[in-house]
Amino acid sequence: ERLGMVEAVWGEHKTAEQIITILERFSAADELGLVTRVSPEKADAVLAALPAVKAHAHARCLTLGELPAPPPGPPPVAVLSGGSSDRSVVAEATLALSCHGIAVDPLMDVGVAGLHRLLDQLPRLESAVVLIACAGMEGALPTVLAGLVPQPIIGVPVSVGYGISQGGRTALEGMLASCAPGLTVVNIDNGYGAAMAALRMLRNR
Amino acid sequence: ERLGMVEAVWGEHKTAEQIITILERFSAADELGLVTRVSPEKADAVLAALPAVKAHAHARCLTLGELPAPPPGPPPVAVLSGGSSDRSVVAEATLALSCHGIAVDPLMDVGVAGLHRLLDQLPRLESAVVLIACAGMEGALPTVLAGLVPQPIIGVPVSVGYGISQGGRTALEGMLASCAPGLTVVNIDNGYGAAMAALRMLRNR
Amino acid sequence: ERLGMVEAVWGEHKTAEQIITILERFSAADELGLVTRVSPEKADAVLAALPAVKAHAHARCLTLGELPAPPPGPPPVAVLSGGSSDRSVVAEATLALSCHGIAVDPLMDVGVAGLHRLLDQLPRLESAVVLIACAGMEGALPTVLAGLVPQPIIGVPVSVGYGISQGGRTALEGMLASCAPGLTVVNIDNGYGAAMAALRMLRNR
Amino acid sequence: ERLGMVEAVWGEHKTAEQIITILERFSAADELGLVTRVSPEKADAVLAALPAVKAHAHARCLTLGELPAPPPGPPPVAVLSGGSSDRSVVAEATLALSCHGIAVDPLMDVGVAGLHRLLDQLPRLESAVVLIACAGMEGALPTVLAGLVPQPIIGVPVSVGYGISQGGRTALEGMLASCAPGLTVVNIDNGYGAAMAALRMLRNR
Amino acid sequence: ERLGMVEAVWGEHKTAEQIITILERFSAADELGLVTRVSPEKADAVLAALPAVKAHAHARCLTLGELPAPPPGPPPVAVLSGGSSDRSVVAEATLALSCHGIAVDPLMDVGVAGLHRLLDQLPRLESAVVLIACAGMEGALPTVLAGLVPQPIIGVPVSVGYGISQGGRTALEGMLASCAPGLTVVNIDNGYGAAMAALRMLRNR
Amino acid sequence: ERLGMVEAVWGEHKTAEQIITILERFSAADELGLVTRVSPEKADAVLAALPAVKAHAHARCLTLGELPAPPPGPPPVAVLSGGSSDRSVVAEATLALSCHGIAVDPLMDVGVAGLHRLLDQLPRLESAVVLIACAGMEGALPTVLAGLVPQPIIGVPVSVGYGISQGGRTALEGMLASCAPGLTVVNIDNGYGAAMAALRMLRNR
Amino acid sequence: ERLGMVEAVWGEHKTAEQIITILERFSAADELGLVTRVSPEKADAVLAALPAVKAHAHARCLTLGELPAPPPGPPPVAVLSGGSSDRSVVAEATLALSCHGIAVDPLMDVGVAGLHRLLDQLPRLESAVVLIACAGMEGALPTVLAGLVPQPIIGVPVSVGYGISQGGRTALEGMLASCAPGLTVVNIDNGYGAAMAALRMLRNR
Amino acid sequence: ERLGMVEAVWGEHKTAEQIITILERFSAADELGLVTRVSPEKADAVLAALPAVKAHAHARCLTLGELPAPPPGPPPVAVLSGGSSDRSVVAEATLALSCHGIAVDPLMDVGVAGLHRLLDQLPRLESAVVLIACAGMEGALPTVLAGLVPQPIIGVPVSVGYGISQGGRTALEGMLASCAPGLTVVNIDNGYGAAMAALRMLRNR
Ligand SMILES: Nc1ncnc2c1ncn2[C@@H]1O[C@H](COP(=O)(O)O)[C@@H](O)[C@H]1O
Ligand SMILES: Nc1ncnc2c1ncn2[C@@H]1O[C@H](COP(=O)(O)O)[C@@H](O)[C@H]1O
Ligand SMILES: Nc1ncnc2c1ncn2[C@@H]1O[C@H](COP(=O)(O)O)[C@@H](O)[C@H]1O
Ligand SMILES: Nc1ncnc2c1ncn2[C@@H]1O[C@H](COP(=O)(O)O)[C@@H](O)[C@H]1O
Ligand SMILES: [Mg+2]
Ligand SMILES: [Mg+2]
Ligand SMILES: [Mg+2]
Ligand SMILES: [Mg+2]
Ligand SMILES: [Mg+2]
Ligand SMILES: [Mg+2]
Ligand SMILES: [Mg+2]
Ligand SMILES: [Mg+2]
Repeated sequence: ERLGMVEAVWGEHKTAEQIITILERFSAADELGLVTRVSPEKADAVLAALPAVKAHAHARCLTLGELPAPPPGPPPVAVLSGGSSDRSVVAEATLALSCHGIAVDPLMDVGVAGLHRLLDQLPRLESAVVLIACAGMEGALPTVLAGLVPQPIIGVPVSVGYGISQGGRTALEGMLASCAPGLTVVNIDNGYGAAMAALRMLRNR
Repeated sequence: ERLGMVEAVWGEHKTAEQIITILERFSAADELGLVTRVSPEKADAVLAALPAVKAHAHARCLTLGELPAPPPGPPPVAVLSGGSSDRSVVAEATLALSCHGIAVDPLMDVGVAGLHRLLDQLPRLESAVVLIACAGMEGALPTVLAGLVPQPIIGVPVSVGYGISQGGRTALEGMLASCAPGLTVVNIDNGYGAAMAALRMLRNR
Repeated sequence: ERLGMVEAVWGEHKTAEQIITILERFSAADELGLVTRVSPEKADAVLAALPAVKAHAHARCLTLGELPAPPPGPPPVAVLSGGSSDRSVVAEATLALSCHGIAVDPLMDVGVAGLHRLLDQLPRLESAVVLIACAGMEGALPTVLAGLVPQPIIGVPVSVGYGISQGGRTALEGMLASCAPGLTVVNIDNGYGAAMAALRMLRNR
Repeated sequence: ERLGMVEAVWGEHKTAEQIITILERFSAADELGLVTRVSPEKADAVLAALPAVKAHAHARCLTLGELPAPPPGPPPVAVLSGGSSDRSVVAEATLALSCHGIAVDPLMDVGVAGLHRLLDQLPRLESAVVLIACAGMEGALPTVLAGLVPQPIIGVPVSVGYGISQGGRTALEGMLASCAPGLTVVNIDNGYGAAMAALRMLRNR
Repeated sequence: ERLGMVEAVWGEHKTAEQIITILERFSAADELGLVTRVSPEKADAVLAALPAVKAHAHARCLTLGELPAPPPGPPPVAVLSGGSSDRSVVAEATLALSCHGIAVDPLMDVGVAGLHRLLDQLPRLESAVVLIACAGMEGALPTVLAGLVPQPIIGVPVSVGYGISQGGRTALEGMLASCAPGLTVVNIDNGYGAAMAALRMLRNR
Repeated sequence: ERLGMVEAVWGEHKTAEQIITILERFSAADELGLVTRVSPEKADAVLAALPAVKAHAHARCLTLGELPAPPPGPPPVAVLSGGSSDRSVVAEATLALSCHGIAVDPLMDVGVAGLHRLLDQLPRLESAVVLIACAGMEGALPTVLAGLVPQPIIGVPVSVGYGISQGGRTALEGMLASCAPGLTVVNIDNGYGAAMAALRMLRNR
Repeated sequence: ERLGMVEAVWGEHKTAEQIITILERFSAADELGLVTRVSPEKADAVLAALPAVKAHAHARCLTLGELPAPPPGPPPVAVLSGGSSDRSVVAEATLALSCHGIAVDPLMDVGVAGLHRLLDQLPRLESAVVLIACAGMEGALPTVLAGLVPQPIIGVPVSVGYGISQGGRTALEGMLASCAPGLTVVNIDNGYGAAMAALRMLRNR
Repeated sequence: ERLGMVEAVWGEHKTAEQIITILERFSAADELGLVTRVSPEKADAVLAALPAVKAHAHARCLTLGELPAPPPGPPPVAVLSGGSSDRSVVAEATLALSCHGIAVDPLMDVGVAGLHRLLDQLPRLESAVVLIACAGMEGALPTVLAGLVPQPIIGVPVSVGYGISQGGRTALEGMLASCAPGLTVVNIDNGYGAAMAALRMLRNR
């Protein structure tokens, strides 16, 4: 396609039948198919009909077709996250990048409430070209990160939290309001979007 | 008064005449008078009528009566802030504490976008009994602080910011959503309230 | 850990498997484990795997390891609440304090719509060092309390209510807007956070 | 008019010229005219053209025509308020009632942060048929009142406050969420509406 | 009780066991018990334990004890509603009034989109002392009514609607913003509160 | 232009100099120029430079060029409004239509709080092809109208009101939530947009 | 009925029994019955009782009675949509129009992220008298369309999206804020309302 | 500084005196100084004290020190905007980039309501490495752009609009909700932040 991106199918409001039809169309056109936001029940129904489909449970995604092997060398994208509750967003971003042959260096559990775990990992971030920082609750991780390293940072607010932070709005607004310069942000839980933004940035190399 | 606190008069919606009447009543009762949220124009009008009143420009406050001298020793309260725009909130909290004979150690310009300035000041915080942390924009300062030190921390969101963070709600929600345990919060710009909360906590010593 | 607090594991978005792994890690390190926001189903699954775990149904929490016995003397923390619907928040705060060997004096059903029940209990509050006041609906309990007693008061808004007060925002905003000086507030339903704030304040004794 | 109420003219968005024209029409029809939300400047312009108009500065209102004298006996309506900042809403309600020959018993400065001032006034409330309770900030006054007395209570949220309570929404939502049974509410600052609601209720006598 | 009202028990967040205990306490004190917001499942569990309890399905309520017979004569309260979706709110208000021996004249299906159905019923409203008007969606019924009749009108917004009006906020705000004078409002779906407000007003007769 | 509409220039954020340049460009191209949202001061500055410009004070607009004469016959568009505060929105819609040679029948002061004034005007509405209904506060006028007449109705919420209805959101949401079928809505105060929508509909004749 | 529209029954909050009763009444009056927002379970229950009812699964609707045959010629209404997730809103609008004998030209999958698919369909839109444009997420389709074609366009925001766009508010606000002149909007997911608005406009022909 | 960025001083809440002190400090350290959000009055006061300062009126910024000359070749950043009202945001972004020696290609007046103006400029965009797209109202420009070109795109919502779009939130939410993959967003009016994000991305070349 014109933009050079695997256009993900958003599975949330689609029936298993609709997803199957779309994946068959991709397959016929010999294109890699990626479906996001697929519940376990829907995934099972699709797999029953199309056994070649691969289900990615953590990422709540389906793929059909071979993922391209990433080139050798250090992964160009680091994906950071504050806690294990952000796992499915991290997995969605990682899978979307591997659909384009891009490897990811994952740094989990580096939330700002335990700052030293994050500071300890800074040297490891040096080889990354782009950083994706996922955080729920108050979402301060990308802000702190943007004050520490010079690369592009994409903040992904996560819909983890309760009370005032339920649904991810507090994390989103905190990232947008950040006083650290040059942080950009995508929609809540939008791991796929963050991956595509990273892809656009990597093409500059 | 029953609670052992100087009850501040909230000057925002009062006329100079109303403020003068109230201060004369305090003076007659031989009580220290504190008026908050007083515009420069109103302050001038009050001073013209009551020359014994003292205007505190940064704090936008008036006092009538002698402030008690703080006891010797290190200040029991540290007031931190991310930037010079938070100045008037810091000043209101500081003045309200000095109305009760409590000294303050001020740490300005220790925002999270330049983390090392904050980390450098940690040793200085050790003698503080209570910390008041003021921050606008995304308001991450109290969260980061609460992950680093064990004392009580009172977060004060500041109505500094623009766009999504205009008016201080983003800072407020970020502090409430904090994943650092045991942080408490007061209303936006409520320097006086933070001071009174600190006062309540100091009585435990 | 550096802050001297049992760091609770937030169970809401974790699977039983994740919780089991984390608790085993705590156990191996000989640390007390506390998991909050655990549904009955998840609790059962964890208990089946780890019979030494103790489930606290009202608090929706799990613990692994011996709770320290509180020292003799009157409980230093009073936890008040307006109605029986606030029960699980009260229980979470109480359990989090007992994980640190701190006893609680519970005062249920002292809501402001029946003011005399609250006024009758005032003498009993005198020996408390810190007060935690939980309230849903319009959340006026901590405000009224803060006008009556001089100790530190931590307001906990509860997600009990319907229509305009559904989800606890009205209670939260009422507490933040309080005209009683020196009240501080934590996130909606954050019993654990209120307990940790009380713990920070108790250390001042 | 059909409803037996003086229909107030809402002056906020009208020019002095429009107000003059409307008042002349009322005058020609020999009806009492009441204009609310009139700025001092507009009031001056109207008075210059129509010297028979009376300006009520606290209430920000104008009247043209004789106000009916209230019948002898105790005032049937009590208007309570938490602080002197609520003064103009109290004045608007009072004036709108006196346009219908109804007297008011005013109780100012009975806010819930100083509960004993309110409790001291309870006996005085017994002769009131309807109560109007005005409050800004967290707006808890009508809730506390409705738990103490059996008459109809009309809550009027006031746009006094700052930060979270700025504009009166917190007071409004607190009143609507009230756990005291049978409290009704009008729009923020709607002194005139509260008066008309009281008038409807008084007709039942 | 002091206010002369049956204090309803709010059943929403209580277990069947809690409700049973409370009802037994009422019964032992020989007081009429009323529980609101009870799901069918909970109702069944309570009835199994306490066969003397009466379940009111439309109102989602339980009562224990004899309802007082209303005095002869036309019902003093009219309850109006725009559509059959408002039924459970209407039923809750009606039951709460009959717990106090007050009869209700119900007028369903008189929404403003079919104005003539409402206009046709106006004569029937003349004998009502108080009107309760329930409406979801845009909630215009009480506004139109308040322009047509002189009695007290209590608006009850109903959580019926979708999109922008989902949850009842649009109806609530429309009623509060009403340009018809003297309309008062209660919380969304608060049939019990509207009934108690009517009760307070009826005592003036 | 392609759409056959006079494209208005939105004057709000433009300087007088920018507006002058744009109008000169229109004039050179021999096109009718329409500028909306122009403050009196800016209008004066533009007129000083371009004396051929015509200022429309009520509509807060400027035009340059001859307005086309409307064809004979009854005006195809009726513009209704609830009160005189809606005047500038009505005037903007009317002027935008006359820029296209379309005449308007204005019906002011037909708000729903005085329903009979509206019902009295119904026969006059019969010849209108399209109706534009402007309303602030609770914005119920278009809903009531859409239940009474079969033509297309465009609701225009007006930013008139205070408290909950300040800024026009309550009117907007009430119109969108309307239970009267087939009502469409434009942005708050968008008289120009309503006129252009009417223009699109009139072309169907 | 007076307005010449099939008045749809809103099925969301009604029981199957209520729906059956209403449909029988329509049938007895020999009127076409249309019920919207009917879940599959409720539909089954209604069909079991009234086998003549027809269920429209995509539209989540029921009809009872013969749909009028559309007249020959090109369909006067085009319904456009950005993606297959908007399907049920499109189906509701289409069915509501066919209840009035009006045919629809459907254009699915013409979202703005792939602009050329939309541009390719422009010629096909020329014969449409009215356009209904359904879009979720950011809802930009009607805006882009309104800049390209001169007919009336009704925007229907769809409650498809996640994070910030969950529930359809972002799409709604984007359509209302549109800088393309003359676009009108209905409530989120209001396919029926858009159809009735189109019906009102078509009568002008 | 560590990040290799000119750290702008946010001038909005600072006095002229504060700005002068800060600029003198920069000057003494031989660093380029950039102050944003400076009102014309404040700018004049600063220039009176420091004649070497340069005021950038459109950008509402001050600089002190020589701006680095951009290297030869096509500008690596394109800044697009929908209308002339977005001018000051465009100017802030442009100035912040030129402080780092980066040239900008400006494309004004390419809003989505006149799509062809945008489509005509596509070839010109090919040489840009990063695109910054500024838009107010419904903010659809970056979405449409992201569907057309493969480079990184930074959306900047602008606080231009009225009614529902006043303050820029609608534009912000529309950009976040975008169905075009890989668009990232900064705070409303944050031209400086968009420039710094572009700077981070350009370093990858
Ligand atoms: N700056 C302030 N922030 C918060 N509360 C304040 C402030 N100044 C005064 N108050 C409180 O506001 C109340 C005074 O209100 P008033 O009676 O209107 O003067 C008292 O309860 C004070 O404790
Ligand atoms: N019930 C609770 N309320 C508030 N914070 C909690 C709660 N339980 C755990 N936490 C905090 O949430 C974080 C745990 O997140 P996680 O690493 O995902 O388990 C820690 O900072 C805890 O202190
Ligand atoms: N009063 C108005 N309300 C809504 N849209 C307007 C108004 N005036 C002008 N417009 C639209 O705003 C755009 C003009 O924006 P600009 O290019 O900034 O002048 C055009 O699309 C006009 O159709
Ligand atoms: N126009 C602007 N938009 C966003 N951030 C800015 C702007 N100008 C300055 N900043 C940031 O705001 C902070 C400066 O705050 P202060 O210390 O109060 O001057 C720095 O982190 C800057 O990077
Ligand atoms: Mg996190
Ligand atoms: Mg800050
Ligand atoms: Mg409560
Ligand atoms: Mg008050
Ligand atoms: Mg209704
Ligand atoms: Mg109106
Ligand atoms: Mg779409
Ligand atoms: Mg724009």
